[in-house]
Amino acid sequence: MTYCVGLRLDQGLVLAADTRTNAGFDNISIFRKMHVWERPGDRVIILMSAGNLALSQSVISDLNEAIDAGGERHSFTTVETLFQAARLVGEALRAVRRIDGPALEESGTPFNVSFILGGQIHGEPPRLFQIYAEGNFIEATKDTPFLQIGEHKYGKPILDRAARTDMPLSDAAKLVLLSFDSTLRSNLSVGMPLDLVIYQRDRLHITHQRRIDADDPYFQTLSQDWSRALGQALRDMQPYAGDALTDPAG
Amino acid sequence: MTYCVGLRLDQGLVLAADTRTNAGFDNISIFRKMHVWERPGDRVIILMSAGNLALSQSVISDLNEAIDAGGERHSFTTVETLFQAARLVGEALRAVRRIDGPALEESGTPFNVSFILGGQIHGEPPRLFQIYAEGNFIEATKDTPFLQIGEHKYGKPILDRAARTDMPLSDAAKLVLLSFDSTLRSNLSVGMPLDLVIYQRDRLHITHQRRIDADDPYFQTLSQDWSRALGQALRDMQPYAGDALTDPAG
Repeated sequence: MTYCVGLRLDQGLVLAADTRTNAGFDNISIFRKMHVWERPGDRVIILMSAGNLALSQSVISDLNEAIDAGGERHSFTTVETLFQAARLVGEALRAVRRIDGPALEESGTPFNVSFILGGQIHGEPPRLFQIYAEGNFIEATKDTPFLQIGEHKYGKPILDRAARTDMPLSDAAKLVLLSFDSTLRSNLSVGMPLDLVIYQRDRLHITHQRRIDADDPYFQTLSQDWSRALGQALRDMQPYAGDALTDPAG
Repeated sequence: MTYCVGLRLDQGLVLAADTRTNAGFDNISIFRKMHVWERPGDRVIILMSAGNLALSQSVISDLNEAIDAGGERHSFTTVETLFQAARLVGEALRAVRRIDGPALEESGTPFNVSFILGGQIHGEPPRLFQIYAEGNFIEATKDTPFLQIGEHKYGKPILDRAARTDMPLSDAAKLVLLSFDSTLRSNLSVGMPLDLVIYQRDRLHITHQRRIDADDPYFQTLSQDWSRALGQALRDMQPYAGDALTDPAG
């Protein structure tokens, strides 16, 4: 499995993806699930994938071939809006389904792949999309500033509680890493290292990109401090007082 | 959907279930998913269900008919261990599948139902089982003192962090309610009220049972205090310091 999350904030974007892929629990590998296209001063496009690796890699390759074809095909370098970029991903997905779908269907393998697309193209604000296996997509709004794909449930409660469009990027990155921390603790199929990108609005180049390993000092401290703080908060909550529980004679 | 959780602790058991069932989001009802059989001084058996309500109700009815048949059939009143009680649930499940399975299969409806069985029978310690749709089951151990069915992922991180077999029942009940709080916030298909049972080891009668409504003062206070404490803990964590983020010139 995979866990990827993207936040669209007033100050820019924060995106993170884990790197674990597996074909059964005895075949675990590290693959990049975050792909970045950048033309400084003009556009930054980041695509993260979850699901069947063969399918997501085919989509990425198709998108790259379109770029290599120069002006002959619409591509990430020619689109004028991120909405059009999301459409391109959807089209690439549908093209892959036409080629690989029937064989997958024959073997009973679901066509399971999804994407988060974030970035900014000169002339519009930063945007964030989630693209489904069918090729259609939704866009993050002020009400729900985050999008998740893959093994998303463990890390959702903390985002539901704390994600706000007006939060600083440094707090958003902290929140994203805590969302990963919860997921990593509860699900073995999501694994370090993580790829993190922070994009500051209107810079039109990637302002911060890092691979975070399991022994990263900040992540380790954050994880330990958070565990300690949660434990303390839990102890501080008033215990449940049932009748029988307060009566030692039961 | 449903969320049910059970904890097997040194001091006894804590079990909780929500009450929301739905057939599509415009058809939401309240049904009891927690069923209690009690013969004071001899046995306490609690069964919680998730999944297709028609299937779980059929299983419960079959188990009750076995009791009504007196000594003619093995039942929750005749079994000598909770392991045998779990086997009875598995057998009832397989009987329901023989009757209803083919029609469900024809319409493409999955045979989706599962149970948590907890309790104590005179002569053995409290035990806790999770029974799958196939009728087989697992038992909670010292290493993993909790079992969950239904929409379990949102509420799992806090249990992973804090559930210990040596915790007091009042702390365990608090933990279970916080696990529900996270689930309720992140998933609309799990809803109040909740049914809560706390069983003190060796009492051989239910020591505390309550339906907790949305306006329950303890639950409301707990939910608000927890939200505040998490918010504060989050603010206390050191923000992520990327190079570009600390350089105002980017």
